[in-house]
Amino acid sequence: MQVLTRFGISLEKKLLKNFDRHIQGKNYHNRSEAIRDLIRKELVNQEWAEGKEVAGAITIVYDHHKRELMGRLTDIQHDFNQLIIANQHVHLSHDNCLETIVVKGKAGEINKLADKLKSQKGVKYSTLSIATTARTL
Amino acid sequence: MQVLTRFGISLEKKLLKNFDRHIQGKNYHNRSEAIRDLIRKELVNQEWAEGKEVAGAITIVYDHHKRELMGRLTDIQHDFNQLIIANQHVHLSHDNCLETIVVKGKAGEINKLADKLKSQKGVKYSTLSIATTARTL
Amino acid sequence: MQVLTRFGISLEKKLLKNFDRHIQGKNYHNRSEAIRDLIRKELVNQEWAEGKEVAGAITIVYDHHKRELMGRLTDIQHDFNQLIIANQHVHLSHDNCLETIVVKGKAGEINKLADKLKSQKGVKYSTLSIATTARTL
Amino acid sequence: MQVLTRFGISLEKKLLKNFDRHIQGKNYHNRSEAIRDLIRKELVNQEWAEGKEVAGAITIVYDHHKRELMGRLTDIQHDFNQLIIANQHVHLSHDNCLETIVVKGKAGEINKLADKLKSQKGVKYSTLSIATTARTL
Repeated sequence: MQVLTRFGISLEKKLLKNFDRHIQGKNYHNRSEAIRDLIRKELVNQEWAEGKEVAGAITIVYDHHKRELMGRLTDIQHDFNQLIIANQHVHLSHDNCLETIVVKGKAGEINKLADKLKSQKGVKYSTLSIATTARTL
Repeated sequence: MQVLTRFGISLEKKLLKNFDRHIQGKNYHNRSEAIRDLIRKELVNQEWAEGKEVAGAITIVYDHHKRELMGRLTDIQHDFNQLIIANQHVHLSHDNCLETIVVKGKAGEINKLADKLKSQKGVKYSTLSIATTARTL
Repeated sequence: MQVLTRFGISLEKKLLKNFDRHIQGKNYHNRSEAIRDLIRKELVNQEWAEGKEVAGAITIVYDHHKRELMGRLTDIQHDFNQLIIANQHVHLSHDNCLETIVVKGKAGEINKLADKLKSQKGVKYSTLSIATTARTL
Repeated sequence: MQVLTRFGISLEKKLLKNFDRHIQGKNYHNRSEAIRDLIRKELVNQEWAEGKEVAGAITIVYDHHKRELMGRLTDIQHDFNQLIIANQHVHLSHDNCLETIVVKGKAGEINKLADKLKSQKGVKYSTLSIATTARTL
């Protein structure tokens, strides 16, 4: 259980009114939670920019009919097994699969793995979603 | 199996040289595959901008000690069950979990679900990774 | 002169410590100003997402030797003159120019203008920088 | 005048059809130009990621009534004068100004200048638009 601390900030009245309206539209119940989310997002971006130990998810969409592709994807994941925590496979349609791969490690290493997967023939789309181990949040 | 078509494009010599060097660094074996990836990424961004039927992955990092959070996250997912294909849970550390939720549906609906999950107290980080059903790719 | 209002927010102690360290590295003198910037950035993104009246800057880099390009760029800007406030031209090198075009209007119209400029042959790079009229900030 | 080179690429028929429709909507007259733009954008992102010599534009929106702000902004720009090529000032409204500052130099230095400007009290919004000196394009 983490210790909470409380402090005051000052804001232009009009800005606060507009922020309150905005976060209501985004389902927030109170300002503190919305501001905490902005702060945490800022810090997570910084972790990645500095190449820190991070977590993330790689999403790939591919055609499982492509000969040997699934074998190659598995080989690559085993080459980087120290980064990979788990993966999940979904059948999008007759031809296409979507896979999410949860990763944890140095930002630079994760980028390398993501590039490697993305460049494979038959992988139609791939993106790296940055997240965090939350150690500093 | 999709039919391939072939066409020519012209490029400044220097630009092509720099592109070839760049894609080698990104693990591509040939230009066609690298250019296909650029084209598909452009089209996926467009699908989302136009609110089309898309696929994606929501990643959330949360503290499972927060009272009732896991129950609320499950309730929300059931409210949006028509969008959710599967989810995967990973234990990041003693306190923190990371979950990836694979979604498919209208871009606007997926954004609403992502906002709802993100705004919950105890969710420390959340991001929506846009992907595609690959129907048009 | 705008009226300031003051309110309190609560944060985990560790998160606050990390945020304080982060904003010091970004040159902020106090938390309020850093949090105001996060809030305003969030609201500006929302203005663009909702197609509101916004301001921005289009940056284009082009080769001024391309025959007729400068004439075409000027024609396009005149077609959209109700959106354009001012522009500025810089000589980057013997061949290349960089131009910034300050725009104000509906987000959708500005995107159209940016697309039009970007698609011209000889324009090597173009990007739209979203900003704000600051009416709600 | 740069030498053009021509080469062939192969693409799934359906993908090509969708790309052709997409680029028509974006005002492109031919595929080569659209693909060149995708390639150049990829290379510019890489230049910034690698900290190369780049060009860009910083956009700031500020309240010119804030005491001493304009003086501070000018001082900062002079401290970084080796990066700044030109700037342009626009009167957005009674209270607010928008300024675009064209910069050229190492990506890391430009980021520092952008952070410094953004953190000033009275600067309501600031963004760095990455562009390029176009030497490699």
